Order: sequence, then structure tokens, then C-alpha cells
Amino acid sequence: MGRCVLLFLLLGFLMSGVAIPLPPALRALSNVRLSTSFTSLPSGDMEHSIRYVQQKVDHFGFKTDRTFKQRYLIADKHWKRDGGSILFYTGNEGDIVWICNNTGFMWDVAEELKAMLVFAEHRYYGKSLPFGANSFKDSKHMNFLTSEQALADFAQLIKHLKRTNPGADNQPVIAVGGSYGGMLAAWLRMKYPHVVVGALAASAPIWQFEDIVPCGVFMKIVTTDFRKNDPDCSESIRRSWDAINRFSRTGAGLRWLSEALQLCTPLTNSQDVQHLKDWISETWVNLAVVDYPYEANFLQPLPAWPVKEACQYLKNPGVSDTQLLQNIFQALNVYYNYSGQAICLNMSETSTSSMGHLSWSYQACTEMVVPFCTNGFDDMFEPHTWDLKKFSDDCFNLWGVKPRPSWITTMYGGKNINSHTNIIFSNGDLDPWSGGGVTKNITDTLVAITIREAAHHLDLRANNAFDPMSVQLARSLEVKYMKQWIRDFYSSLRKKH
Amino acid sequence: MGRCVLLFLLLGFLMSGVAIPLPPALRALSNVRLSTSFTSLPSGDMEHSIRYVQQKVDHFGFKTDRTFKQRYLIADKHWKRDGGSILFYTGNEGDIVWICNNTGFMWDVAEELKAMLVFAEHRYYGKSLPFGANSFKDSKHMNFLTSEQALADFAQLIKHLKRTNPGADNQPVIAVGGSYGGMLAAWLRMKYPHVVVGALAASAPIWQFEDIVPCGVFMKIVTTDFRKNDPDCSESIRRSWDAINRFSRTGAGLRWLSEALQLCTPLTNSQDVQHLKDWISETWVNLAVVDYPYEANFLQPLPAWPVKEACQYLKNPGVSDTQLLQNIFQALNVYYNYSGQAICLNMSETSTSSMGHLSWSYQACTEMVVPFCTNGFDDMFEPHTWDLKKFSDDCFNLWGVKPRPSWITTMYGGKNINSHTNIIFSNGDLDPWSGGGVTKNITDTLVAITIREAAHHLDLRANNAFDPMSVQLARSLEVKYMKQWIRDFYSSLRKKH
Repeated sequence: MGRCVLLFLLLGFLMSGVAIPLPPALRALSNVRLSTSFTSLPSGDMEHSIRYVQQKVDHFGFKTDRTFKQRYLIADKHWKRDGGSILFYTGNEGDIVWICNNTGFMWDVAEELKAMLVFAEHRYYGKSLPFGANSFKDSKHMNFLTSEQALADFAQLIKHLKRTNPGADNQPVIAVGGSYGGMLAAWLRMKYPHVVVGALAASAPIWQFEDIVPCGVFMKIVTTDFRKNDPDCSESIRRSWDAINRFSRTGAGLRWLSEALQLCTPLTNSQDVQHLKDWISETWVNLAVVDYPYEANFLQPLPAWPVKEACQYLKNPGVSDTQLLQNIFQALNVYYNYSGQAICLNMSETSTSSMGHLSWSYQACTEMVVPFCTNGFDDMFEPHTWDLKKFSDDCFNLWGVKPRPSWITTMYGGKNINSHTNIIFSNGDLDPWSGGGVTKNITDTLVAITIREAAHHLDLRANNAFDPMSVQLARSLEVKYMKQWIRDFYSSLRKKH
Repeated sequence: MGRCVLLFLLLGFLMSGVAIPLPPALRALSNVRLSTSFTSLPSGDMEHSIRYVQQKVDHFGFKTDRTFKQRYLIADKHWKRDGGSILFYTGNEGDIVWICNNTGFMWDVAEELKAMLVFAEHRYYGKSLPFGANSFKDSKHMNFLTSEQALADFAQLIKHLKRTNPGADNQPVIAVGGSYGGMLAAWLRMKYPHVVVGALAASAPIWQFEDIVPCGVFMKIVTTDFRKNDPDCSESIRRSWDAINRFSRTGAGLRWLSEALQLCTPLTNSQDVQHLKDWISETWVNLAVVDYPYEANFLQPLPAWPVKEACQYLKNPGVSDTQLLQNIFQALNVYYNYSGQAICLNMSETSTSSMGHLSWSYQACTEMVVPFCTNGFDDMFEPHTWDLKKFSDDCFNLWGVKPRPSWITTMYGGKNINSHTNIIFSNGDLDPWSGGGVTKNITDTLVAITIREAAHHLDLRANNAFDPMSVQLARSLEVKYMKQWIRDFYSSLRKKH
């Protein structure tokens, strides 16, 4: 029952007009029927075992000694006890099986690195629930959902792996992660350099906090992705908001909109209209985030270069409001109905389709405070300032917690991270999250790889015939660095003996 | 009332025969009337302001947003806004005024480094109590007493200092600490390298955990200190335990012992005898820890080279039991009655004289699990194995918490810390805690300084005419490294602009 209340609140929150800053991957996950991809298991070469490890619910306090079972996947087909390595995926805001299925890179390089593959599920996601079904009940039960606790889980799990897998003890571990998982990979290396020898942080917007980067950078890149396809495309979207607003003034207009966009639930009031605009905005965001060069179903079945597909319907911003919104509907259909099976478009799926959403909204309301804003000039969206006060009040109403927007910078250093070593920050230039990422080398061992024509952590996906050369090069560079870390590890091990 | 119960339990705990591993400094603090030194303020050149900063009670959870006032001392007489630096003492298990008074080194080098001096009090010590008088009430209130929370306090305080002291923003901060404070200084650099450019970790036994060093190393060094003065001295002490045991067999023997040792409270049973032996053991430990080359009152007034002073009464191990124990009494008097004012010796002061003791016993029962043991061969004490099970049970009875003996190693890396930079580990060769310290260079920037003829963090004390050359050299080497860190900081700052 507690959960129903929360979901209701969450919906109310979204509908209040303040967009919850969604998680890197989950911003792309909105409106997606996750159930299918979550249940599909890797097959053939992606064979793995599912295991569990006992973790303290609270690594940082001793009042309770309660534990929970953290799930992880392990694959050792190519692992060599002699001279091998361990690639450790630092799980982010989703079911780890789904993440594993979308991280083909690790499977592709396992043989070359003689690597054991481990995918660790993040607490409060998937099946790794500290209090079972009660985990999302209230702020008391959510209290142990922080990046620090997650990193401690990872450190403990790696210790456990080394203890329980003969031969693993004297092997280098490399953290790999994408999106929020990429942040965790980088932070794991920063905070536990004795546990992992290096990290591949793919599409990790570690600087998308406080005012390190402008709050508008994300939506500006989304806009650029559309404009690059066709300036008329982004302009069509820019004009669509006012068209919606004009239709929304009357009941007849609302009815027309509901029918033209084939919404499952008709619009009835101004809150619904705000929700509609948030939902459409997020669709454009999602398309930009997963603008992959081949047909893919990271989120749901989508054509190759889906932004281009959508933009083919948006070539003429100068048409009438009616025509413009019919065109918008066609473009939305690229995202919501590539399969051709949808009977209507369901705006409410945005925030109810995944448990991950719920946990992330808590994280966004506490530590992971990512400021977003738009101004309508540099981007194609309606202007929206970042209002921390309102955000904080909404979070308090939703979860009974107050965000601490500067904590992540205090904890993880913000821009001042140059004393760390062995982290690869990779970013696709199409990825809206690259705006908060590290896109220039900081030192010789804190390196940035920018991948042209690539969306959100394309480099972590499996090799594909349609991959641009840029991502192939990026992956081989990543492997080169990893091999160097592994060599360094073994050479310093030899020195010790 | 809660506190009384706890004190009683604590006493019971000590009397159960399991010595609570005392904190580095507090092991030396036992049996000491702290009230005098705690209230004496620095004068003259040690002038400072007392300030407070609001800190979250829980940096790692959002259920509560409660704050408390952390006390810190600040002195800026020699601070230069132009090209200056900030020396930040990472407070350990005691009142920060007392710590400040015993860290003359920072005052002595302030002018040379153009440094602002800051002494931050550790939460749950001195006046920095998260729940005021209720702070020690139970495991619920103690739950936020961890090294991680303390480090987060320090990081937040440094941010606060930079925000509130114009000119401080672009200055390098160097962490300084002794004993547990030395561990915190090192750990602050390891975990928050963006906050401090380097650390002087004086007498910091960061390896006195799990089985990184043998559990007997501490008492072995204590023994060596006595034996080096005179092998007959350590032999006298070794034989004294059996002498006590023989007297303890009868009521008449107990009465004789109580009178011969001028105990304030007569011994009545075997528990009392165990307490007596623990208390005497700790006295020898304390003498070794503060075996300074000049009259000092770090703990209480003591003569120069107090181990030697004590040993002058213990030159003949071959005397009768009666004579041996009378000699022991004379030696104890060096520690307890240098002033000549004591009417009787009070064994119960060990654990009741300082609030710090209480908080440390909690820390020792949770994170700071320091294994101690003796075997009677390599040391001069009765054999005592390290019994984690019993220790854990006692901790649970005392505080309702269970120790996590391997957590500190997971968190801070144990021996595997070579990826960090800019930490000086200094150790005196007389200091029993040096057994768990870093006494060999790890890399060019993780350096060890071993100080001959020096006890527990002698280098942090003020210059003294009786200082051995070794500690003078150590201090100038420490300053040399600090200046290098400061230069590096400013040169990288210039590169940025």
C-alpha cells in the first residue's frame, strides 16, 4: 500500500510541472515497457550464473547489523586463473540482467583480457532490495540508498569474489560502468583505488552537479542532435509547444489534441497538458540519448538513427498548428510504435513502468541533484528555470527528505580530481549527458575519449556491423588502457615477490 | 542516567579481564586527571578563536536533516592571504583545546608556512556532541560516531573555511594529525585528495588492524622500551604478575597488596586483582607512550624520560615478592605521583576520567578494532590471546553493537595504499604504536620518517631545548615536504589561469 501512495505522489510530482531530473539511463527509459527486456536472459555466448552475496544494509553505522542479498551475475568462460583479470560492472539504476544484456562490450573483450565478468546489481534495484517489498515504503527504509553505500557494496563484493574464487585473489579488477554506473565506476576507483586498478566510465556525467556545467547544457545537446539532422526539425518542435498551448485553451481543443495524438487517456485540464508537454519533451530526450546507428532495443525496438527517423516527419515548421501536431504525432510514433502494435499512446507509463524509477527519484531527491533548465533560445523547449527551492519542497513532499545539492561535489571532488589515476571517461558527441562529462584529458592517466556519431555509452554495447569507425577505435583504445593497467598490476606484483 | 549505566558497564567490561583496546592517545590517557589539562587554554603565542560550524549529524543518510555544532579553533596571526596555506588538525579522541595545547609544532611552523591554523574537534568528543548530553545514551545515539562521518565533517568544515575566510579559497590545505588523528589525516588525504593537498600523519598506526601486523607487536615494543633501559627492569615487571597472583590467594595477601600499593579502594576478589593487573599493565604502556626527553604534562606532570625514572626502582628482579611489589609501587608512583600530592592510587580513574574514553570504547567496538595480544616471552606481560569472539560478545553487551574487524581495511586499503600521494608517516622508535605504523617509504610521495629516541608523536610537540637531534631533523623534513606541496599547489593554480 505504501508503494501505491508513493507512485501516486510521484505522478503528482511529475504533473506539477517540475520534471524530476531522471537518471542518465532512465531518462531514456521513460515510457518504455521494460518488462520484455528485463526478462530476456542472455543466451549463448552471454551465459552466466546468478549469485547473491550478503551485504550489510548499513556500511556506515553499527546500530543495525541487518544484511540483505545483493544479486550479481558472473561469467568465467574466458577467465584464466593464470594472468587473468576481472571486469566488474558497477551496476546502476536498473535490473542487472537488463544491464548485462546491454553491455556486450565486456563480453566481446573477455577473451582478450582473460577476464572473469561480474555484473553487480545496485542496491534498491532489480532483486537487490534491502528490505524486500518494504524497501520503498518510506524515508526510513530508503535511508540506505546512496552512492556511498553502493560503492561499499561493490568493494565488499570484490573482496568476496577474491575470497571465494581460487585464483582471483591476485588478479587486477577493472571497474566498468555506463551512465550513473559510469559515475560509480569512476568513483569506485577514486575512493577504493586499492580495490580496482582502473575504471572505464562510459557516458558518466560526473560534472552535471551544482553549477559545474550550465544547467541548460543537456537540453541544448538534445536540440543540437535534432537540428543537425535538419534545422527545420528542431524548429518544428520549438513551435509545437505554443501550438499545444493554443489548442489547450478550449475543451474542443483538448479533445482534438487527445485524438490527434491518439492518447490512451484524454486530456481534461491544464495539469494534463503540462504532463503531455513533459512527456513529449522526454520523448525527444530519449530519442537523442539512444540515437544508435542500428536497429536496437535497449529501451524498446527502435530503428537505426531514430532521431533522423523522427525528423523526417518534421521538415516544415511553417505549417498550420493542426498539421504541425499531426506531424509531431508521426514523430512520436517512431519512438512509441516502431513495432506498429500500439493502439494508443500512454503518457502514464513514463513513471510507473519500472521500480528503478522510484529508487532513482529518491536518489535525485537526495544526493544526485542534477540541475536542468531550458531557455527556449539555445534549445527547442519551453523555458524552465532550475528552481532548487521548489525542487526541494517537492522532494520533501514526495519522500520526506531534503536534497543536499553540494554533497556530491564535496564527496567526489567536482572538477578537482586530478590526483586520481587510471580512469577512462568516454563520451559520445550525440549524447546529451556528454555535457556533464569529462571530455578532455585531465592527466596522462585520467583520459577522455570522445566518440563521434555516438549516443549514450554506445561503446559499451556489443560490436555491430553498423558501428561507426569512431566507436571501434574508442573500444580498442579502451582495451589498450585496460591492458596497460593489467600489465602494471602484474609487474608491481612481481616486484613484491 | 543513561551515562551512569554505560560507565558502569564499561567498568564491568574492563574488569572482565578483556582489556578494551584503547585509542592511541587515550591508551596513554588512562588514569589521568584530565580536568586540569583540558581547561588550560593556550596563552600568548597560541592565541586562537573558538568557533562552531553546523554539521549534518548523518552525512550518509537523508532520513534526518538534524545538525549539530562542531567546535573548531582557529589562529591566523601568521596567515597570509597572499601565498599562504592552511594547516588543518584532524581532531582525534579528545577535547580539541587539550589537543591544540599539545600540538606546538603547528604553532612553531605557522609563520614559515604563512599558515592559518585550524584545529577541528572530532564529533562525540569535547564539546562537539551530536545529541548534547544524550550523545552517549545508546547505540541509536552513538550511530553517527565513525571515522567516515568525522572525515566528512572535516571536508565540510574546510569548504566552510574557504567560503567564510576571504583569501582562503585559493589556498592549499594540509592535514595534520597525531595518533588516531594521524590516521584521520592520512585517510582524509586518501579519501578527499581534492580537499587537502597532503597530510602529516604522526604516529598513525594505520596497519594495526586485522592481521596486517602481529597482535603482539605493541606490547613487545613497550617491553623493549623498558628492557633497553635495563633488562632487569622488564624482568622485574615480568615477575611481578606471579607475585601478585601469589598474594591474591588469601585475604591477608589481598590486604597486604592493597596497602603496599596504597590503593584507594582495597582489593576484595579475583576480579579486582585482574583489574589491578590491567591497570598496572596500562601504566607501563602509558609510560612507554609518553617517554619524552623532557618534563612534560601531556597527560599529567611527568619527569623527563619517565621509563628510565620508573626503571630505577626495578633493578633487581631476584628479590622477594614483598620487595618486588614494593618496588613496583615506587615505579607506579613515577606515573601517578610525580607531584607528590597523591594520597592513594585510584585504579578506577582509568575509565571514568574522560568522556573521550567512552566514545573511544564505542569506536573500538565498531570500526577501530585493534587486536592486542601478549605471550609473556616476547613481552613482559601475562599471556593474553586476542579473542575476537569474546571481544565481540563484550561489545554487544556494552553497546549493543558488533565489531566489524575487517571494515577499516576494506575502506582504507590496508597495506595496499600505494596509489595515494603526499602523505608523511612519522613514527618514533620508542612508540609502541609505531608497530602498526608505516615505517618505510612506500613511494616518493608516501614517505616514512622514523624518529630515533622519540615516543608517541613527539614531532607534533613544540620545539624544546631537550629535543633529540632526530626530532629536529624530522620536523624540518616535514616542513620541507609541506612546502613542496604548497609550491605544487600554487604552480598548478597558475597553470589553470
